[in-house]
Amino acid sequence: MVSVGHPLNPRSPRPNRIVLLTDFGEQDGYVGIMKGVIAQTAPNCPVIDLSHRIPPQDIGAGRFCLANAYRYFPQGSIFVAVVDPGVGSDRRSIAVEFAQGYFVGPDNGLISGILENSPARRAIHLTNRHYWRIPQPSFTFQGRDIFASVAAHLAQGVPFTDLGETLPVEDLVTFPLLSVVIMPQTVQGCLQYIDQFGNLISNIPVSCLTDAPWSVQFKHQQIPGGQSYHQVPIGTAIALGGSHGWLEIAINQGHAQQQFAAQVGDELTVYFDKL
Amino acid sequence: MVSVGHPLNPRSPRPNRIVLLTDFGEQDGYVGIMKGVIAQTAPNCPVIDLSHRIPPQDIGAGRFCLANAYRYFPQGSIFVAVVDPGVGSDRRSIAVEFAQGYFVGPDNGLISGILENSPARRAIHLTNRHYWRIPQPSFTFQGRDIFASVAAHLAQGVPFTDLGETLPVEDLVTFPLLSVVIMPQTVQGCLQYIDQFGNLISNIPVSCLTDAPWSVQFKHQQIPGGQSYHQVPIGTAIALGGSHGWLEIAINQGHAQQQFAAQVGDELTVYFDKL
Amino acid sequence: MVSVGHPLNPRSPRPNRIVLLTDFGEQDGYVGIMKGVIAQTAPNCPVIDLSHRIPPQDIGAGRFCLANAYRYFPQGSIFVAVVDPGVGSDRRSIAVEFAQGYFVGPDNGLISGILENSPARRAIHLTNRHYWRIPQPSFTFQGRDIFASVAAHLAQGVPFTDLGETLPVEDLVTFPLLSVVIMPQTVQGCLQYIDQFGNLISNIPVSCLTDAPWSVQFKHQQIPGGQSYHQVPIGTAIALGGSHGWLEIAINQGHAQQQFAAQVGDELTVYFDKL
Repeated sequence: MVSVGHPLNPRSPRPNRIVLLTDFGEQDGYVGIMKGVIAQTAPNCPVIDLSHRIPPQDIGAGRFCLANAYRYFPQGSIFVAVVDPGVGSDRRSIAVEFAQGYFVGPDNGLISGILENSPARRAIHLTNRHYWRIPQPSFTFQGRDIFASVAAHLAQGVPFTDLGETLPVEDLVTFPLLSVVIMPQTVQGCLQYIDQFGNLISNIPVSCLTDAPWSVQFKHQQIPGGQSYHQVPIGTAIALGGSHGWLEIAINQGHAQQQFAAQVGDELTVYFDKL
Repeated sequence: MVSVGHPLNPRSPRPNRIVLLTDFGEQDGYVGIMKGVIAQTAPNCPVIDLSHRIPPQDIGAGRFCLANAYRYFPQGSIFVAVVDPGVGSDRRSIAVEFAQGYFVGPDNGLISGILENSPARRAIHLTNRHYWRIPQPSFTFQGRDIFASVAAHLAQGVPFTDLGETLPVEDLVTFPLLSVVIMPQTVQGCLQYIDQFGNLISNIPVSCLTDAPWSVQFKHQQIPGGQSYHQVPIGTAIALGGSHGWLEIAINQGHAQQQFAAQVGDELTVYFDKL
Repeated sequence: MVSVGHPLNPRSPRPNRIVLLTDFGEQDGYVGIMKGVIAQTAPNCPVIDLSHRIPPQDIGAGRFCLANAYRYFPQGSIFVAVVDPGVGSDRRSIAVEFAQGYFVGPDNGLISGILENSPARRAIHLTNRHYWRIPQPSFTFQGRDIFASVAAHLAQGVPFTDLGETLPVEDLVTFPLLSVVIMPQTVQGCLQYIDQFGNLISNIPVSCLTDAPWSVQFKHQQIPGGQSYHQVPIGTAIALGGSHGWLEIAINQGHAQQQFAAQVGDELTVYFDKL
């Protein structure tokens, strides 16, 4: 798809669909309600679910999923992300424009992983209540009363800067990854995310890996580096350059989190020599 | 969105999308099959999922989710709800028109919560097999063979009254909430729903609450009334006017159902004085 | 819907929507990413979720869900199915045309249940990297890099045979059901699938059942044959002709898998005489 530019800014992608990420789960209908609110304002706007199973209030997991996914969506996608432990407090509600599209959600670092790859162009503090569903929104369900409504108006062509007060992009709250330590023969890092299959995703980019043989030390085990699960026997650990672009530890047809009793933040080291 | 009226009744909302609520879960493809059936008849009709995780055969939970959600959808939405312990028995299949839209499903009280706020205008006993998927439907999957098919035909413009025999709206099965007892200094009620995060939702409307301080007694504990989770320390209980319009008991970043060993039906009392 | 034929083959259904079945679950956003990839190439193509909760790498369960569901979708549906223990190995990626629509996925037998009812017309080995998302796809996420992208191009009108090299349909990998043994007074079979409610679905077609009374022997219990759950008391087992067309054992408002400690492959026998 080619972006033809937003009326007020020829560089801006034209909003064309809404992508939802929340920690609301699927039982209680909260996501369906957000889709209803969107349909009331933008009845023909496509809506795509990215995930509604982010662990409750886990900003780091939401940040990972957004950073991992945004580049696969058409330019002009509006990412509405609601993982929001600060709902009802004085944390800001924001919209951010970046090259690929837009973010609408709380200002708590959820967008940090996107912005590390695709810097923010403009940011707005969502203070214009005209585009909220109601002027006095719920203290606990701002996904419905602010974010879904604002995103739907944006999709309908409301100019980005009408949504509220311009905010310096440097003022956005960040949620940085821990740094990796790159040495001549090793790279040290830690786990940043554990997926639902128990695969352990580190903060080491696959660009750190080389064509030369390498292996990973994790929890006192030496794990061979490879390319796909079937290169090791069933039940055996392997380290891979994952599809998301990060070094990952997996068990062929098994559950690495359980087998290693692993947690986000656990450290690992890549060694660039043979096992 | 503005309703422009159904051909046979200028007051009637024009059907324009289908909203699905079931207890089918997401594993076995039953919901996808209903969407396939809808697409066979109404290939361009938008379909929105409200929830497919209603606890199996829990009409009260389905009733709550529908009542909580319907007002956030565009006028003309068709709510297809299948929580149906009586499937295959002689319980009626019905369609109901109300100001906001339509209900299609079993006549077992699922729609009761909607009708308490938005009375039924017309009701139909779905006896016209011409609009079923097949004249001899499955005894166990009428969501596929009757409800999805009827809703798709309604969305395509089939007149409401063609779907079967008119039914007096007074004859619809009801599933009433227990009454609350309103006294000068107290309101007594009970839990009507527990959401997936363990939040305890009562049958006491937030309109019963006042600006004066209030607190809740529940299971021999005194719980402060507030507005948002972060007003109490992590792990502490708070009572709120929930986003759904009912008094709710929650634990800040915790699971109230587990902490209180709570069940639907448990009693609570609001006191209108300071703790 | 009426198929009007594919440009290169007047018998072929015109691709018009994509139906997704995976074992990816809903947490990590992998399905959302596939939808993003589809939207990048086919921005207006409807996408329907069939299931993303196939038990990990369980080809038999994916096969069952596809076979059970495909006939309820409009002709021209493209079924993208990714249950793929061999991802990254040398298993083939394929597209198959059958009367109802198309299959895109790994060549591991997932499509077998469809083809037993609706034979393959044409098959393609997906070797044309022009229609992949990138020429060097991930070793672990070919749903994103090959299957979603190829399906989106097919939906956009790319001729089927452009997707790669023609493959004799006899060469497709099959995943056959065990045979049933039909005798004058009995039919012997086994369980082929257990649904999320614990209902036990056999490999015995309902066409084997008669109007005369019948019962089922399973795990040393005699279970009456019937038509709907409510014909037996709550907590009691009943055998039914299920909505999917197979003999099924269920417990009225209960969980047959747990009560019988049942597993796929367990044997059962139908007796055509009274209990």
